[in-house]
Amino acid sequence: MKALTFEGPGRRVWHEIPDPVIGGPEDAVVRVDAVTICGTDLHILKGDVPEVTPGRVLGHEAVGTVLEVGAAVSGFVPGDRVLISCVAGCGRCRYCRENQDGQCLSGGGWTLGHLIDGTQAEQVRVPFADRALHRLPSSVPDEQALLLADILPTAYEVGVRNGRVVPGSTVAIVGAGPIGLAAILTARLLSPSRIVVVDPAASRREAAERLGADLAVADADAAHEAVKTVTDGLGFDTVIEAVGIPETFELCADLVRAGGTVANVGVHGAPATLHLERLWISNVTITTGLVDTSSTPTLLRLLADGRLDTSGLVTHRFGLDEIHDAYDVFGRPQESGALKVALFNQ
Amino acid sequence: MKALTFEGPGRRVWHEIPDPVIGGPEDAVVRVDAVTICGTDLHILKGDVPEVTPGRVLGHEAVGTVLEVGAAVSGFVPGDRVLISCVAGCGRCRYCRENQDGQCLSGGGWTLGHLIDGTQAEQVRVPFADRALHRLPSSVPDEQALLLADILPTAYEVGVRNGRVVPGSTVAIVGAGPIGLAAILTARLLSPSRIVVVDPAASRREAAERLGADLAVADADAAHEAVKTVTDGLGFDTVIEAVGIPETFELCADLVRAGGTVANVGVHGAPATLHLERLWISNVTITTGLVDTSSTPTLLRLLADGRLDTSGLVTHRFGLDEIHDAYDVFGRPQESGALKVALFNQ
Repeated sequence: MKALTFEGPGRRVWHEIPDPVIGGPEDAVVRVDAVTICGTDLHILKGDVPEVTPGRVLGHEAVGTVLEVGAAVSGFVPGDRVLISCVAGCGRCRYCRENQDGQCLSGGGWTLGHLIDGTQAEQVRVPFADRALHRLPSSVPDEQALLLADILPTAYEVGVRNGRVVPGSTVAIVGAGPIGLAAILTARLLSPSRIVVVDPAASRREAAERLGADLAVADADAAHEAVKTVTDGLGFDTVIEAVGIPETFELCADLVRAGGTVANVGVHGAPATLHLERLWISNVTITTGLVDTSSTPTLLRLLADGRLDTSGLVTHRFGLDEIHDAYDVFGRPQESGALKVALFNQ
Repeated sequence: MKALTFEGPGRRVWHEIPDPVIGGPEDAVVRVDAVTICGTDLHILKGDVPEVTPGRVLGHEAVGTVLEVGAAVSGFVPGDRVLISCVAGCGRCRYCRENQDGQCLSGGGWTLGHLIDGTQAEQVRVPFADRALHRLPSSVPDEQALLLADILPTAYEVGVRNGRVVPGSTVAIVGAGPIGLAAILTARLLSPSRIVVVDPAASRREAAERLGADLAVADADAAHEAVKTVTDGLGFDTVIEAVGIPETFELCADLVRAGGTVANVGVHGAPATLHLERLWISNVTITTGLVDTSSTPTLLRLLADGRLDTSGLVTHRFGLDEIHDAYDVFGRPQESGALKVALFNQ
């Protein structure tokens, strides 16, 4: 089959490699019908994720058709149309029993395109298939379902749910890339009173407003101004960090009200400063997290019911063999205006 | 009356000042029967809390007898024996309605010995008296009740409850001063599987073990060793910071497991480093907070019922007019072995 492999920092190759095979009784092999690229793939390509070694097939988000299942897979048969989730656990360890698959102690968690070959290929081997796969209703198109492999549950679980958004909440989202935009969509499920987004890129602020932000501002000064106008000077109930650099995290901690929550979603490469000399007295909660995908079945149902509309997130479409073009477009969002890209294996 | 006033960094004076008077309809004036000194008072005396201005009567923890109440006070009459809580809110603002009196927007919160005259005096004016005072059962002696003015609810709400201690939890408490020891007592209410305490002072480690810690270790290396022996290398479910310096906060963030909670109770004067490059993926929750005293009635009932025993915490007793001696003993715990001191107005 054809696959995109990481070949060291800055190097990706689209080439023929052996088809994947069932390696254990809980595996499935799935034909990839549609796949996308994640900001994390760009991090890997920069060499920021040392666990990813040369030769690794990239990608952890896809929709496909089951080709073969191991002897212990009970929920799926060849021919099933499925979502392949970015994270899946063993289902048996301490963490999985608390639905924290992202922290699985027995070889699960985030493995695809990380510790094992991923989804940017014509086929993929999926371990813990009963937990990793989700059967797709025929009413949900591949392109919409694709966004539930990672960004929707990540934004919802790690941003909105950890951030304790409730009806009437004031919500600030710092960063309006795909995750920040997915946080807008999923925060709206809880009827917050106001969603304010902070992003320097005009195209992303426009996307944020189109997807439901009440206000989109460009910088920290404007965000502080929004504290006054939107929250009566108190600060936001929930602040979601969707960038991943120290400056944006520290901005989040400045924007939250006493008693509020900063939910970090961004992937960080450096430490931040935590101003405990100010925060110790403030009843603030700060959360971090990798998605567990416990919300994926719920989000899929909301999508099928038309209660969640992810159609504004995919801006560019490609054939799977145009994957280098897709990386070029996704990797230069300022020029291309790209949010998420979808690649189809036709 | 006689009172102890702050007269600028390093200066405290015990002298005659005018008796307090009812200043508003929600006030009470209370005769102080017993009072204690808090680590925060030492911070104030160092000049670390700039809101406290010269001439301010110190102290925010006491037990007393009501002398007079304002026209709107409905729950207390002169002669009632009461606990004076360190924090009380208006009962009407957004925060108070969520039982977050510590963040009261209408002049409540932590005021005594901070923004208004406090309890280290023969009498004290107590605002929001219906919310600040708690009637004491005759079975609870002054010395035990005194510890419910601040340290027990602080350790319980900001440490144990924010830290989400549940039956079976592994709990690490960094710092075995009065707050750390109160965290042991209140964590035990929830039947954790193991409590490990970290403190360099041998006398405090001994007190920790006497009050219910399963293991007390001296330093970070030994704490990391306890991660291996007590938590199978995973890290602690709950880590309570009860010191207030960057090093101890950062140790807490090292000791917590993925999915666990660091509950900061320490009063900090400087920022700490938050290692988001490691923590972003770990589903960690970090909380801060000032006590709200929402738990005070519950803790008082547990004390009256003999389910909570605070008798090990007071190590030294004084007459109220020996307050300078009490400060000297409390301020040099390494030499004196002091935990909490109690002063009685006889």
